[in-house]
Amino acid sequence: MTGRIDGKALIRAIEKMATLTDQSAPPFTRRAFTETYLRGREWLKSHFETSGLDVKLDAAANLIGRMEGLDRDRPPIMIGSHTDTVTGGGRYDGILGVLTGAAVASYLHRSGQSLRFPLEVVDFLSEEVSDYGAVSCVGSRAIVGTLSQEMLLRNNPNGETLKDAIKRMGGNPDLLNAPLKKRGDIAAYMELHIEQGPVLDTAGIPIGVVSGIVAIRRVKITVRGQANHAGTTPMKARNDALVGASQMISLVHDLALDWQGSFPLVATVGRIEIFPNSPNVIPGLCIMDLEVRSISEEEIDTFLDQVEKAASDTSAKCHVSVSFETASDAYPALCSENIIATIKEACSNLGYEYLEMPSGAGHDAMHVASIAPIGMIFVPSVKGLSHCSEEFTKEEHIIAGAEVLLESLLLLNEKLDVSYAKLLK
Amino acid sequence: MTGRIDGKALIRAIEKMATLTDQSAPPFTRRAFTETYLRGREWLKSHFETSGLDVKLDAAANLIGRMEGLDRDRPPIMIGSHTDTVTGGGRYDGILGVLTGAAVASYLHRSGQSLRFPLEVVDFLSEEVSDYGAVSCVGSRAIVGTLSQEMLLRNNPNGETLKDAIKRMGGNPDLLNAPLKKRGDIAAYMELHIEQGPVLDTAGIPIGVVSGIVAIRRVKITVRGQANHAGTTPMKARNDALVGASQMISLVHDLALDWQGSFPLVATVGRIEIFPNSPNVIPGLCIMDLEVRSISEEEIDTFLDQVEKAASDTSAKCHVSVSFETASDAYPALCSENIIATIKEACSNLGYEYLEMPSGAGHDAMHVASIAPIGMIFVPSVKGLSHCSEEFTKEEHIIAGAEVLLESLLLLNEKLDVSYAKLLK
Repeated sequence: MTGRIDGKALIRAIEKMATLTDQSAPPFTRRAFTETYLRGREWLKSHFETSGLDVKLDAAANLIGRMEGLDRDRPPIMIGSHTDTVTGGGRYDGILGVLTGAAVASYLHRSGQSLRFPLEVVDFLSEEVSDYGAVSCVGSRAIVGTLSQEMLLRNNPNGETLKDAIKRMGGNPDLLNAPLKKRGDIAAYMELHIEQGPVLDTAGIPIGVVSGIVAIRRVKITVRGQANHAGTTPMKARNDALVGASQMISLVHDLALDWQGSFPLVATVGRIEIFPNSPNVIPGLCIMDLEVRSISEEEIDTFLDQVEKAASDTSAKCHVSVSFETASDAYPALCSENIIATIKEACSNLGYEYLEMPSGAGHDAMHVASIAPIGMIFVPSVKGLSHCSEEFTKEEHIIAGAEVLLESLLLLNEKLDVSYAKLLK
Repeated sequence: MTGRIDGKALIRAIEKMATLTDQSAPPFTRRAFTETYLRGREWLKSHFETSGLDVKLDAAANLIGRMEGLDRDRPPIMIGSHTDTVTGGGRYDGILGVLTGAAVASYLHRSGQSLRFPLEVVDFLSEEVSDYGAVSCVGSRAIVGTLSQEMLLRNNPNGETLKDAIKRMGGNPDLLNAPLKKRGDIAAYMELHIEQGPVLDTAGIPIGVVSGIVAIRRVKITVRGQANHAGTTPMKARNDALVGASQMISLVHDLALDWQGSFPLVATVGRIEIFPNSPNVIPGLCIMDLEVRSISEEEIDTFLDQVEKAASDTSAKCHVSVSFETASDAYPALCSENIIATIKEACSNLGYEYLEMPSGAGHDAMHVASIAPIGMIFVPSVKGLSHCSEEFTKEEHIIAGAEVLLESLLLLNEKLDVSYAKLLK
C-alpha cells in the first residue's frame, strides 16, 4: 500500500531545509557547528515535534526525536542520517534520511498507530568531514565509542576543540569517554540516503537495497626514478618517475575496469605528488594515493596482488622502482541479511523495482553497524551528482523511498517482535 | 701537438675556485651577485692578469680579460662562459669555460705568441637562473641587447632590482638600453662546457663538437574530465582526467623513445597539476607542461603533430578532452659550420676522438649567436650528473678540452685572418 506518506509535506520540509543555508557560502552550505546549522536544528526540532516525536539532545549533541512503542522497555528501532553538508553541497545528502524518518513518524502519529518498539529518528552530529582535524561522523562515532579523546581535542582553524564545539551544540562531552550505546541498545538501524552515484539513475530503478558499505583500502605507491636535466638526458638514459607512475595509473584503471570479481570494485589514483615538479627536470620521485573499494576485503586483496605483480613490468620497462605501503584500511560494514530481506519485501509489497548494491560512500550507518543490525535504502541521484549544488533526486523517488522506509519499519517491527519475544522466553 | 696547456695550473685553478663557495649553503654554491661571487671574481681577476690578460668590467658587469692581437682594430675572438652556480651546484659548469679560456691565454702569454686578432676571455654575469625574477644569462643578453628594461626592473626577494644589482657588481646599467655589441664586433665566439648529459661519458669519447643549442618548445597540455566521488562512481562511468593524462605521458615518452628523425629529440612531462588532488575524488582536471627539445624546429613540429593526433585516441578511450597550447618557444642557436669544422680539425690534429652532438642545455653561446659565429666544445660529465655536488669531469678530459680549445683558436685565427683580409680588399 502506497500513499501513506504525506509527500507534499515531505517535499516542503526539504525545501524549507534548503533555505537554511549559509548566506556567505555557495549554496547549499550548512556546516556542522555553525550558526546556520543551529538554525537548521531549531527548525528540525519543531518539525520533529509536529511529527509526533519527543525531542532531546544526547551527550554527543545528536538530535533525537523519540516516539514510544507499546513496550517502553524495548530498545528502539532507529532511523537516521545527518543535516550537515559540505561547503557548496546539496539539498539531499543526509537531509533526506532525517526528513523521511520524520515523515514516517508523522504517518504513525497521524494514523494513531503504535509500534511494538520505540522509534527514534536521529540527526547525527557532523557526518561530513569536519573542520576539527577532519573528524567525520562525530555523532555516530560517539554512540558506538569510536570518537576518541584524541579526536575530541582536535582544533578547528579558530582554535576551538571538537570537545568545546560539542558542548556549544548542547552536548555533554565529559560523558564521551565511554560508548553512549552498547550492543542490544538499538534493535535495528535504518538509513535512507541518496545514492551519490549514477547506477540507479542510469538503470532507471527507484530503490537501491544496500548490501553493505564498502571497505576502503588506501595504498601509498612510491615510484622512484632519477631526477635529471630534461635537455641533456637522452630518452634511453632516463629513469622518469612520472612515466613509471603513469603506467601504474593506467594499469590500475584497466585492471579495475575489467574486474571480473563477484562484487563491484572501484580503484582510483586521486592524488599524486611529483618531485621536483619543474618543466625542465625529469621527475625523480612520484608518490600516489591509490584507493580501492569493495564490499569484499578478499577481492581487494586479490586486486592489489594483481597490481603489485604488474608493477614489476613497469619497473623493468621504465627503469624505476615501485613500492607499496598500506596507508589505511577501513573494514566493510555489511548490512543485516534480515533487514536486506525486509527492505526487498517492502519494495515487492509496494510494487517498486529495486537493485541490490553496495554503498561506495561512507555513512553514519557504518559506525552504528558495530553495535546493531543495519539496513540502508538508496534513492537515485540524477547523473550521480552529489556534494555539489546540482545534487538532485526526483520527488517521485523521494516519496518512493519514504514509502519503502515506512513499509520496512512496519515489517521489521513485526519480525523483530517475534524474535524479541523468542529472546524473552 | 698536445702538452701546450699547463694542466697542473688549470686543475689548481679549478680547485681554488671550488674553495670560493658560500659556507652557509650546500657545496658548491657561488650565486651571482653575492659576496662569495665577488670574492670569486676578485681571485679570477688576478688569475686573468697572471695569464697575460688586461681585465675590465663592461657596462653589464661582465668580467673581460683582453690580450691585444697584432691588429688592434680587428674585432676580438671571444672565449667565455660563467662562474656563477646554482645553489648546491658543481665545480665545473661554466667555470671550466672561463678557466680553460684563461689557460689558453696563459699559453699564448708564456710562449710569447700573438694572434692576429685580439683575444677576449669573458666571465659572463649570472648565466644561471637568477634570483631576480628568474632572469638568466644576464651578461650575454646584455651584450646582444636582449636584456630588456622590464628584466632590469625585476626584484630579488630582498627587493633589490636587477639594475641596482648590476651596478653593485661594478656595471653601468644606464648603458644597457642598447646592445653592448653589434654584428661585426665579435669575430668569433667559442665556449667550452661540460656536457651535463651522459652521452660522451657512456660512449667513452673525450670531446663533443656541438652542432648547436637545441630549440625548446613548451606546450601546456590540459586534460579535462569530470571530478566525481571515488567510491560511488563505477569504473565505466568515469571521466578520470589523471587516467587521460597518464596515457598522454606514456604516449609522449614512447614517441620520443622511438623517434627516428635526423636529429636527436627529447620530450619530457616534468610538471603536472591535478585537481582536486584528493585521494577520494576522481581527478577532474590535469594540466601538464610538456617540453620538447631538438636542434630542428621542423622535427619538433612533426613530433607534436604525432602527439596531437594520438591524443584523440586518449580522448575517446578515457572519455576526456585533451587540448594543447604553446607556452613558449625558444629558437635553436646553430653553431657556425666554419667553427664546427675548425674544432673537428683541431681534434684530428691532436688525435682526440670526437662526437658531433647538439647541446640540450642552454648556454651564454646561444645569446652571442645572434650577432657572431659561435662554436662549442663539450667535455664528458661523469654519469651525466650536473647542477649537483657530484658533478665531475676527469682531469684528462679537462686538459683535452683545453688543448682542443687552444688548437681551435690558433686554427681560427689563421682562417679568419684570410677571410678578414678578403673582406678588407
